[in-house]
Amino acid sequence: MKVMDELAQRIESDERLAITYRLTISDGRSPEDHARDLAVEQSVEIPFECIPDEITDRGIVGRVESIAPVPNQEKVFEVVISYRSDNTAFSVPQFINVIYGNISMKRDITVTGLDLPPLLLEAFGGPTFGIEGIRAITGVFKRPLACTALKPIGLSLKKLASMAADYARGGLDLLKEDHAMADLAYHPFAERIARCQEAIMRENASSGHNMLYFPMISGGFDEIEKQAEIVKSNGCKGVLIAPFLIGADLIRVLSRRHNLIVMTHPAMTGAYYCDPSHGITMEVLMGTIFRVIGADISIFPNAGGRFSYTAQECRNVGEALRRPLGKLKPAFPCPAGGMTLDRMAAMAENFGSETVLLIGGGLMQQSSDLAKSAATFMEAIEQHFEN
Amino acid sequence: MKVMDELAQRIESDERLAITYRLTISDGRSPEDHARDLAVEQSVEIPFECIPDEITDRGIVGRVESIAPVPNQEKVFEVVISYRSDNTAFSVPQFINVIYGNISMKRDITVTGLDLPPLLLEAFGGPTFGIEGIRAITGVFKRPLACTALKPIGLSLKKLASMAADYARGGLDLLKEDHAMADLAYHPFAERIARCQEAIMRENASSGHNMLYFPMISGGFDEIEKQAEIVKSNGCKGVLIAPFLIGADLIRVLSRRHNLIVMTHPAMTGAYYCDPSHGITMEVLMGTIFRVIGADISIFPNAGGRFSYTAQECRNVGEALRRPLGKLKPAFPCPAGGMTLDRMAAMAENFGSETVLLIGGGLMQQSSDLAKSAATFMEAIEQHFEN
Repeated sequence: MKVMDELAQRIESDERLAITYRLTISDGRSPEDHARDLAVEQSVEIPFECIPDEITDRGIVGRVESIAPVPNQEKVFEVVISYRSDNTAFSVPQFINVIYGNISMKRDITVTGLDLPPLLLEAFGGPTFGIEGIRAITGVFKRPLACTALKPIGLSLKKLASMAADYARGGLDLLKEDHAMADLAYHPFAERIARCQEAIMRENASSGHNMLYFPMISGGFDEIEKQAEIVKSNGCKGVLIAPFLIGADLIRVLSRRHNLIVMTHPAMTGAYYCDPSHGITMEVLMGTIFRVIGADISIFPNAGGRFSYTAQECRNVGEALRRPLGKLKPAFPCPAGGMTLDRMAAMAENFGSETVLLIGGGLMQQSSDLAKSAATFMEAIEQHFEN
Repeated sequence: MKVMDELAQRIESDERLAITYRLTISDGRSPEDHARDLAVEQSVEIPFECIPDEITDRGIVGRVESIAPVPNQEKVFEVVISYRSDNTAFSVPQFINVIYGNISMKRDITVTGLDLPPLLLEAFGGPTFGIEGIRAITGVFKRPLACTALKPIGLSLKKLASMAADYARGGLDLLKEDHAMADLAYHPFAERIARCQEAIMRENASSGHNMLYFPMISGGFDEIEKQAEIVKSNGCKGVLIAPFLIGADLIRVLSRRHNLIVMTHPAMTGAYYCDPSHGITMEVLMGTIFRVIGADISIFPNAGGRFSYTAQECRNVGEALRRPLGKLKPAFPCPAGGMTLDRMAAMAENFGSETVLLIGGGLMQQSSDLAKSAATFMEAIEQHFEN
């Protein structure tokens, strides 16, 4: 991208990103040794004694900025290491590589923070729409947005379209497809999007509602942009994608080139944050990183549902998606996974109004009349949030 | 792909893939309940009682095939669950999603085995070149292939080309780029590939050697195929890619469409196998999955180097890459990460000759005369392997 080339040229050698890690040491070596190894592993990846002076002088090697013991946790240290921003080539794949590529294969290293300098933030740019843009499109300005999932796979086109219409009639704001909803024989992609969007638009027109429909972009490399074209030609405003299935750079492509709202699904990401002693925290991965690379709405597993994360971990994701971050727009957190209507008070407390509330199977359990379930969902929002 | 459409139509509803999991139970619920939840999570993902009969009748829901306690491990069970092959849409992203998408966010579930039926294997097709094809191109038929890495980032084009020529003079078989070697200002992609390949070809011609050079395909979505074209136009026969940075389907694209040998790098994968209690074993991910989706050479972290995996885990990867698997060609294991010449006997014992031996920084440590280090590497291979 020309913008990135220009930015790359403007970057002075002291423009660095800083990564905070939590290291747990169990081999008797010093935290200084561990930190230095990490810094080298994630930059030049050659034996320390072989690093040419010219490389060190240019700041290309990771630089240990600080090491501090974590209070009350024996052998645990908080380490900050900085790297030249341009080690990322200002490209999403290399950005992720610099953050965690090789150290993913080590143990007892957790990325807990990212400090990204202005030019790097500008190069990636964050969400195209963000909270503000999505609110403008939906016309919903105060309360959280209500979302459900179109599922399960295997239903007929007729049935899916009918369910979609029910949800629209009930007044939901967003309908995303299930992440398993691929180009399957029961409901091939093109027909499915056309039938469902048509049913939704008809229902929106007759009810005065404005439900948006986000199909799942699930194809291989060659299908992705074809699927995006089908989505746009049917009038859909956004898509669901799983960055760790199709490639994280697709967030940017679908967002900037195709001008689609991008809702990200966390498929395959759990391994990075399910173990606090090794990985990338949910806050950093599903929050900061996904926001920086362009997610407008980031779905992540919430506490109290089918997945066992703490309320604090989850609140941190919301915080990372919405706090001031350079000129980047705030993005919507979408806490998910077995959410039900009786958790509405907890959702309000933990996330507030600038949230997409996703209840999938919970609506099916509520009632077999999906329009009724949807309406109940909307009432619950009205009850717990300012409108 | 038309082939996949035809295959999809041919798939009978009883064509299923089977996944073996190790479950560790700590919540007092029965293994039957856990297994059923898993089967549902990875297929229809709706509350069990809401699953329509038509969906169950078509076998779309994951089916628990067996549950067995693991001997001598309290509360650990081996569970086999089968899924319709076509839930994958015969596409790489959905294949991976079916294997581990949502359960990545759970805890205490490890994918330990994959049993893939013939039509699914045929749909993906495995390596284009594999061991046999690469041996034919290199002209090396018996011994392991010797590989090193071009690094570190930040060196000048002149220096990189000179190092590449040294390695060729020393007689190595393969030179891969470091996975950090992106389109960086010090050595922009197009010039770097051109200069290095030119230097290598000149050296190959004068020495009678035949070193292949695999550039790192590191760009975003739009750069990938442009980089592939540059690689091919310079006469390179293969590439290095990191599937978990740019998207796993790129293995297939670069392999089938661009006819390039694909060497895969494990960046970002470690989180899946670093913890035996939750994830995907290295054997299944870096072995079976990468082979099925087309890797010709799979790099993975070896025991005894910078990463702390067991010899058995690593041998299992070699086994998964090379054992008979439908009509799929065997692929080369490439155990890596801090390998040195004094580990050659262990490498021979653990992996045998059908292996790519990767020694990176170890060659730099051996001698500052890289041609001499490379020659020493070749001698060590001759000493420990049949030629």
